[in-house]
Amino acid sequence: MPPADTRTAILDAALALIGRAGIAGFSASALAAEVGVSKATLFHHFRSLDEIPLLAFDRMIAGLVAPDLPDEASLAEAVAAFGSGTFAVAEARRDFLRAYFTFVSGAMYDDRLRARLTASLAASTEAVAALLAPRMADPARAAELAGLLIAFLDGAVTHLLVDPDSPRPRAAWAALQAMIERSYAHADRD
Amino acid sequence: MPPADTRTAILDAALALIGRAGIAGFSASALAAEVGVSKATLFHHFRSLDEIPLLAFDRMIAGLVAPDLPDEASLAEAVAAFGSGTFAVAEARRDFLRAYFTFVSGAMYDDRLRARLTASLAASTEAVAALLAPRMADPARAAELAGLLIAFLDGAVTHLLVDPDSPRPRAAWAALQAMIERSYAHADRD
Repeated sequence: MPPADTRTAILDAALALIGRAGIAGFSASALAAEVGVSKATLFHHFRSLDEIPLLAFDRMIAGLVAPDLPDEASLAEAVAAFGSGTFAVAEARRDFLRAYFTFVSGAMYDDRLRARLTASLAASTEAVAALLAPRMADPARAAELAGLLIAFLDGAVTHLLVDPDSPRPRAAWAALQAMIERSYAHADRD
Repeated sequence: MPPADTRTAILDAALALIGRAGIAGFSASALAAEVGVSKATLFHHFRSLDEIPLLAFDRMIAGLVAPDLPDEASLAEAVAAFGSGTFAVAEARRDFLRAYFTFVSGAMYDDRLRARLTASLAASTEAVAALLAPRMADPARAAELAGLLIAFLDGAVTHLLVDPDSPRPRAAWAALQAMIERSYAHADRD
């Protein structure tokens, strides 16, 4: 396959592998076997094994925070799209999310990973805030709302990973969306 | 010390140990050394090593969800007390919270732990709902609000563990409290 596709296949396989077996099951041999390439091919595309999960998570998170949204979408629609994307991943790609939480948990004991995750959280918050700001009555509050959404969805999705049949995370999300609509939307648009 | 104190000391030491070294560093020998007792004493108080972290987490979570609240406290005061308790633990007892997230992350790969955590989440939600219901305009929505608070605080505290200096989790919490006050409080009390 073309080099860019191989690179993407390696990143996706890294998430699948970590999601299935935890970070303990992540090795160059296991990853190469998962993709169906040689270890030499891995190291042709990436400088080190360590950077692969980091880049894979960035790819996953970028997909969540940049939903394909028409310009004229309202605040309620933008918030709903961000949330449904996150819940859809929680249902369809449990391996991705398990990998994410394994990674967050590992980061608590590793300064370099923690710095990486701090930067990634800040970038996600900024991307979500940029999506919301033009749709808000007070765009200066976009960062606050983005932080609220990301914290809530991180917690809700963790709870769904623990207990996939619980109706609570979605009920809480519906309630939060209604409050956000009343508190942050343009009075004349939404 | 009296048996009840030894039991409590073992549970607290288990959290400190897991918080410092991850679940990988948790063994009967390390725990006995941490408390300053023999392994025989551990197994006099607990049937198995496995149940110790589970009971320790129940103890920690019970402390968070049952803040010492006067009967006449308003909804805003109850919500504020629950949140400040959680943020205070996030700051003062990083080891406790690290242990909690290590445990949640481990539960994703272990059905028995996951069942235990599911029960624990349901019990926490019920305890928080019971605290809020008498202070709400519509007590039937107490479970929904409890789920929202727990999901948000879990996410916010995870972010604080990753990035302790970020102002975002507390800014988001202030915004959420204001929305909850407007949406759920008794019009005549708060």
